[in-house]
Amino acid sequence: MNKIITVSRQFGSGGRTIAREVAKRLSIPCYDHELIDKVREDCGFTKEFIDENGENSSTSLLTSMFGSSFGRDIIWTSQCKVICRLAEEGPCVIVGRCADYILRAKAELFKVFIHADAAKRAERIVSLYGERSDAPEKRIKEKDKRRASYYRYYTDGEWGIAKNYDIALDSGKIGIEKCVDIIVDLY
Amino acid sequence: MNKIITVSRQFGSGGRTIAREVAKRLSIPCYDHELIDKVREDCGFTKEFIDENGENSSTSLLTSMFGSSFGRDIIWTSQCKVICRLAEEGPCVIVGRCADYILRAKAELFKVFIHADAAKRAERIVSLYGERSDAPEKRIKEKDKRRASYYRYYTDGEWGIAKNYDIALDSGKIGIEKCVDIIVDLY
Repeated sequence: MNKIITVSRQFGSGGRTIAREVAKRLSIPCYDHELIDKVREDCGFTKEFIDENGENSSTSLLTSMFGSSFGRDIIWTSQCKVICRLAEEGPCVIVGRCADYILRAKAELFKVFIHADAAKRAERIVSLYGERSDAPEKRIKEKDKRRASYYRYYTDGEWGIAKNYDIALDSGKIGIEKCVDIIVDLY
Repeated sequence: MNKIITVSRQFGSGGRTIAREVAKRLSIPCYDHELIDKVREDCGFTKEFIDENGENSSTSLLTSMFGSSFGRDIIWTSQCKVICRLAEEGPCVIVGRCADYILRAKAELFKVFIHADAAKRAERIVSLYGERSDAPEKRIKEKDKRRASYYRYYTDGEWGIAKNYDIALDSGKIGIEKCVDIIVDLY
């Protein structure tokens, strides 16, 4: 079984940056947005549709009953196939997308969770993605809520519970570089 | 403000051992059972009574209504006083007892959570405390449930949620020595 690092992250915590840097330092691939292209090839939906119906989509009971749950379920199946295939190809880093759950019996996992306080994350998303009409605090809250709800919907598990990860780090307090050092060292 | 390390831990995860070793390496005091003596001096209850009504006590609604909540609340008040006084005296490590909550605005905190999978913890408690009539899995479940419920009762917060700690580590996967290294290095 290949050794895979899964990085779950709060929106704006720098989890993606940490994942990329860890992969670079270990000379292994990192899959984040790249996953969407592969899922697109597998299921035939557009990139936009996959984006809208992936881990940031709304998975409330109402949208499940009357909304796009059919398309989302197809994307989920493709995502599982793609993630399992990538894990078979060799060691890698996978960002989000319930990879920790999907690969739980299929790879040797090192499961990471990255978080930071709301103020630090708000600052980060504004500097990365610019100002929007919604306040950054609102964007953060909404996106985390969707990620947690997507995770719950497809895995029956809880997102962000310490015991579900090998390591959970506050990137705002510890610093992104130091988080990278710790993960690389432990891997 | 002094720099205090608070160590919250699942029962049997080696959190106390990690806390003691970190304190030794940093040449600062570690308060665990020592706290009980200080609380005893403050509130006058016996060690046994404090043990029974501390973080491992039952805090269900029923015991709160009909049980020993009065004594427990007095112990809680003493515990808050003692922990605040210790944090004022100088840098130290404090194990459990909601110190992360009690000191949230009174010290510069480095908040640690230590956990491990149930099998590893069961093995550890049997080797440390011996066999008992209850299965180790049952003892673990019961004690964690009490700690979580005690934390919720007095802090209104949730125990074991990744975002509430600067770092959360799986000591079974990472190893106790390595956990110590990481915490000492980050401090």
